[in-house]
Amino acid sequence: MAGSATITASDVLELSEPLPLDGGQQLEGVRIAYEAYGQLNAARTNAIFVAHATTGDQHLASPHPITGKPGWWDRMVGPGKPIDTDRFYVLCANVIGGCMGSTGPSSLALDGKPYAMRFPVITVRDMVRAHVALLEALDIRTLHAIVGGSMGGMQALSLAANWPHIPERVLAIASTATMAAQNIAFQEVGRQAIMADPEWQGGDYYGTGRAPDSGLAVARMAAHITYLSEDSLTEKFGRRLQDREAKSFGFDADFEVESYLRHQGLAFTTRFDANSYLYITRAMSYFDLEEEQGGKLAEAFARTAAKFCVVSFDTDWLYPTQQSRKLVHVLSAAGAAVSFVELSAPFGHDSFLLDVPALDRVVTGFLSQ
Amino acid sequence: MAGSATITASDVLELSEPLPLDGGQQLEGVRIAYEAYGQLNAARTNAIFVAHATTGDQHLASPHPITGKPGWWDRMVGPGKPIDTDRFYVLCANVIGGCMGSTGPSSLALDGKPYAMRFPVITVRDMVRAHVALLEALDIRTLHAIVGGSMGGMQALSLAANWPHIPERVLAIASTATMAAQNIAFQEVGRQAIMADPEWQGGDYYGTGRAPDSGLAVARMAAHITYLSEDSLTEKFGRRLQDREAKSFGFDADFEVESYLRHQGLAFTTRFDANSYLYITRAMSYFDLEEEQGGKLAEAFARTAAKFCVVSFDTDWLYPTQQSRKLVHVLSAAGAAVSFVELSAPFGHDSFLLDVPALDRVVTGFLSQ
Repeated sequence: MAGSATITASDVLELSEPLPLDGGQQLEGVRIAYEAYGQLNAARTNAIFVAHATTGDQHLASPHPITGKPGWWDRMVGPGKPIDTDRFYVLCANVIGGCMGSTGPSSLALDGKPYAMRFPVITVRDMVRAHVALLEALDIRTLHAIVGGSMGGMQALSLAANWPHIPERVLAIASTATMAAQNIAFQEVGRQAIMADPEWQGGDYYGTGRAPDSGLAVARMAAHITYLSEDSLTEKFGRRLQDREAKSFGFDADFEVESYLRHQGLAFTTRFDANSYLYITRAMSYFDLEEEQGGKLAEAFARTAAKFCVVSFDTDWLYPTQQSRKLVHVLSAAGAAVSFVELSAPFGHDSFLLDVPALDRVVTGFLSQ
Repeated sequence: MAGSATITASDVLELSEPLPLDGGQQLEGVRIAYEAYGQLNAARTNAIFVAHATTGDQHLASPHPITGKPGWWDRMVGPGKPIDTDRFYVLCANVIGGCMGSTGPSSLALDGKPYAMRFPVITVRDMVRAHVALLEALDIRTLHAIVGGSMGGMQALSLAANWPHIPERVLAIASTATMAAQNIAFQEVGRQAIMADPEWQGGDYYGTGRAPDSGLAVARMAAHITYLSEDSLTEKFGRRLQDREAKSFGFDADFEVESYLRHQGLAFTTRFDANSYLYITRAMSYFDLEEEQGGKLAEAFARTAAKFCVVSFDTDWLYPTQQSRKLVHVLSAAGAAVSFVELSAPFGHDSFLLDVPALDRVVTGFLSQ
């Protein structure tokens, strides 16, 4: 999806200063596309930052400009909803490296050509550094809360560890402080699928009228399975056939689950840039908060007065409860105020995005503490 | 890996009759490549058939002709080993659809050209039908046992349900009577990765000097993750870097687990044919013994006097214990003599291939019953 950076109607901030990166480089002229909902109060103390997951974006509670679908957390964010825009000023920004308006590999570099693979490899902390610059530009010194699921949770934890005075509350859902080997492995498969596609062209596919859609679709299909629970796949599809009475004895999508996955893969290519997928998954595989803090994660968390809430789902095998529990132990060791709940929900990792009323109650309660 | 069908030194049987297939077609001139270990007794009653898994072959306990590695179950099969070749005549045949000498998509059709995608879609029962033809040709009327893990277990169950008088013992390890939606989904990703590779050329890559190695490698990488447990990946690799002191901030294989997966993907392409991968995984996704038996699986099993042993592994999330347990309930309902054990082993689905002494004891015990 080359050039999508121009399709957003979100607000865009252009940073006046270069953004330093963990890799040692600086990124010039960084643009951050964001959306805001609700009103900032006079004291500027009611802001909540929602950090998005791997393939999310700033369209938290507004229709997606390409798909036309409701915002990805529309059920959670709005007037009277758990993240209540009648009470809070809710911000969501596209991560750098992304493709929905924030600077990423599809953006133009200083030479007027897309960065492509000249874009520097970034980290989750780099994403958060850009968000902090956005908060500064908006003159927001503290956040009532930072909230995020999956990679959004990693950003929430990174903010607390590195900018301890900003968040008053940190809500990390279906997340981890350290990307595990299995997750690194699945993401490597996705990147290899993209880079194996000849249409990837070493990343220089922008403006060629071609793009590694096949590779990106395969990457998405593989990832999508990991977002769901085995039971939810069985419940949703089982072995039902797709629009046919009998198996075709061919290689069409005979089964509903096959058809569904193909659709998911294809649809993804209409809204996401393959190089962004490489960079964002790379950032996630690099995510190891303990290593980043010199092995002293508890110390890092000891610097913040934030309250923490950690949520996992019993059917999430991608970020299983044990990873959340490990995080909770570290937070407790740091003397942080932390609450932890494992919710029962059938949808696997994707539970944080779906209809789980118990999560709504946890979010509502934690934000009111 | 085009043309590998010629590289085997195994015995090859050519069937004199066409092989009828579940899809309604017949396969002419079927060749079955097999290996045999030990001596058949005078009464011809001491044969054990070992059925191989998805990407296995007949090189059960002899070095693989391409990789030079020991047979895939060398640890289990041999003199004095659990499947004791001093006592038993042990047979293993490459499945039809495969690429190690049995007739498959890389074989020549009657017109002298490789079948490629003209090869008919086969089922697990078709594979077993070919094995039964082999047994008939060898004048073996009964098997002391049929033993298999994963797809090998499916073949074992299929033999018992469809040729109830042949096996006296059926040992199904890390297997299922019905492929679940999640497994169908992962296999669809693998097939899509292959078919998305332009070098696949609609399957007609034989003799072109090109092959969909990139797609096949991606398919293998994704599948390989599913064969291992999360804990074994963490134990084996964790977040260790590959031959470097620090992250490269690039897209090389920084992590050992990335390097390992890339190697697994690449190595696989030297020994396996991409079209065979399509056909064999298709057969597996079609595997539903209950549907095949008209919803009357218990009745199917009621026709056999075989003893059954079902084994699962506690860390196998691809064929989890609940699937084995379901099978055991059906067998019990059929009045079959069935024993069931869930073994504790750290390696995930691959446990059946690896050093699990408890499995050795189960195999030894069951074959002596």
